Amino acid sequence: MSLLAVGTVAFDDIQTPFGHAEKAVGGAATYITLAASYLTNDIRLVSVVGDDFPQATLEEMKKRGIDLAGLQIKQGEKSFFWAGKYHIDMNSRDTLDTQLNVLADFDPVLPEPYKKSEYVMLGNLTPAVQMRVIEQLERPPKFLAMDTMNFWMDNALDNLMEVIQKVDALLINDEEARQLSGEYSLVKAAEKIHKMGPKQLVIKKGEHGALLFEGKHIFFAPALPLAEVFDPTGAGDTFAGGLMGYVAKTGDFSFDNLKKGIIFGSAMASFCVEKFSIEKMLELDSELIKKRLQRFVDLVNFSGIEADI
Amino acid sequence: MSLLAVGTVAFDDIQTPFGHAEKAVGGAATYITLAASYLTNDIRLVSVVGDDFPQATLEEMKKRGIDLAGLQIKQGEKSFFWAGKYHIDMNSRDTLDTQLNVLADFDPVLPEPYKKSEYVMLGNLTPAVQMRVIEQLERPPKFLAMDTMNFWMDNALDNLMEVIQKVDALLINDEEARQLSGEYSLVKAAEKIHKMGPKQLVIKKGEHGALLFEGKHIFFAPALPLAEVFDPTGAGDTFAGGLMGYVAKTGDFSFDNLKKGIIFGSAMASFCVEKFSIEKMLELDSELIKKRLQRFVDLVNFSGIEADI
Repeated sequence: MSLLAVGTVAFDDIQTPFGHAEKAVGGAATYITLAASYLTNDIRLVSVVGDDFPQATLEEMKKRGIDLAGLQIKQGEKSFFWAGKYHIDMNSRDTLDTQLNVLADFDPVLPEPYKKSEYVMLGNLTPAVQMRVIEQLERPPKFLAMDTMNFWMDNALDNLMEVIQKVDALLINDEEARQLSGEYSLVKAAEKIHKMGPKQLVIKKGEHGALLFEGKHIFFAPALPLAEVFDPTGAGDTFAGGLMGYVAKTGDFSFDNLKKGIIFGSAMASFCVEKFSIEKMLELDSELIKKRLQRFVDLVNFSGIEADI
Repeated sequence: MSLLAVGTVAFDDIQTPFGHAEKAVGGAATYITLAASYLTNDIRLVSVVGDDFPQATLEEMKKRGIDLAGLQIKQGEKSFFWAGKYHIDMNSRDTLDTQLNVLADFDPVLPEPYKKSEYVMLGNLTPAVQMRVIEQLERPPKFLAMDTMNFWMDNALDNLMEVIQKVDALLINDEEARQLSGEYSLVKAAEKIHKMGPKQLVIKKGEHGALLFEGKHIFFAPALPLAEVFDPTGAGDTFAGGLMGYVAKTGDFSFDNLKKGIIFGSAMASFCVEKFSIEKMLELDSELIKKRLQRFVDLVNFSGIEADI
């Protein structure tokens, strides 16, 4: 079923303890669509790049079945650029540079078929731009999810709250959930955020896994313990792409199915961090993904505990 | 089957964002034995207190089937005392005061029957004292586990390494695992620590759960997301007590059974933090524990994912 992904397609300059990637391909929508492309077809991308963005990457995306009709290419302009440096713990990073470029006046335009998309993932963007996408949808999607970040909580909270009110699921990290709710406990944060609109809340905790809240129900998915994390950039977006790709593939967004979607998302994210930039996300196949999923099953699986007390 | 627990029995002064408990009962062995007492019988305690330690607490422990023949009571002396203040994240704390008192010249003496204990948990203590306990065992226990802390890595590393070499399982937190191994990745840390002796390594990550490593096998147990964490003091020891109580109860320390032990430990720890000091650990019953275990099952349980790729 159709999945619409909106977000940045961009360049990253990434420094980690393992190396330095200059002008590497990145962007939320890049990671979301690539991850989803291993799970479902009919993926539509809405974004904007300058004419500096590599045609080869766009060809790779097309080859993976990603529809780029909604990707604006601005002649004579430059793509969005972000530079960051990760700390040794890989869970925190400093932003060294942000150049909005084409993103400064991005006005998303949905091609006609996109307006009837069944599943929608709004990557982290100016809330007003996210809202512009929602406004163009001709009918409410079956499942609408969004990501955001603390920057918008600091600088565009009113707009952000309007978008949050309209989505089914909000995907943010633990610090963002605490900031948005004013609660330190994630359980209490989830209660407050449910009241803001989203029926489902996914809290991403990086190397500490992810939590799914739906009313009183809680599900926890671990991150895969890895010997090496080369580059965490895009892990959260890859997670979102895996989750939404799975939801779109199965057409099922019940709590039980979202659990599985979160495991898929975690599995895709565990690949993403193994190489710099989108490199790993171009070389997967279903056999590798199957094996990775089995590792998640093994990691948390236990049975027969009820009999022991 | 018999479980020997060695560690402090002490007073804590605890400040958390929720309140202040002065001269509250604490100590590693207190928490270990109380947690284990809900799972198994024949629990033996080796420790030392002054004559200031409340008789009522000792009676409570006896009522729960904990053998106190190995508890030395030093007349005219004071019990070990620790004062600490938790940060808002409850995962980190500052030590405000430490008074060794009776612990300064603690020489553990095992009563005759203790020397044949089948399961042994060495709580965090001076490595030389842990070694004195091992030396008194007449035969190797079926399963010998230990806890320690960064203080001993800084101040008694040689002694510590000798003890570590002799145990089956080492239980430490993530920072300690990183310090001991010199590796940031916990997967790499586990590889190095296995080479130091322990076949099993349990890494406690507080609110982020716990990892069990045995060779190439990894198991992850989440911490239960809670609306309120009143006092994390003793959570790690309670976890160890639940784990070792389960191993002693079942007489099975295979990887598959240790998984379940770690879930039991996590469940007991989730109770521990709900009230100050040992309060909650005195009021549990099998019905409450059963319900709590079910919450862990629900928290991580998913099925049928293999069919979807």
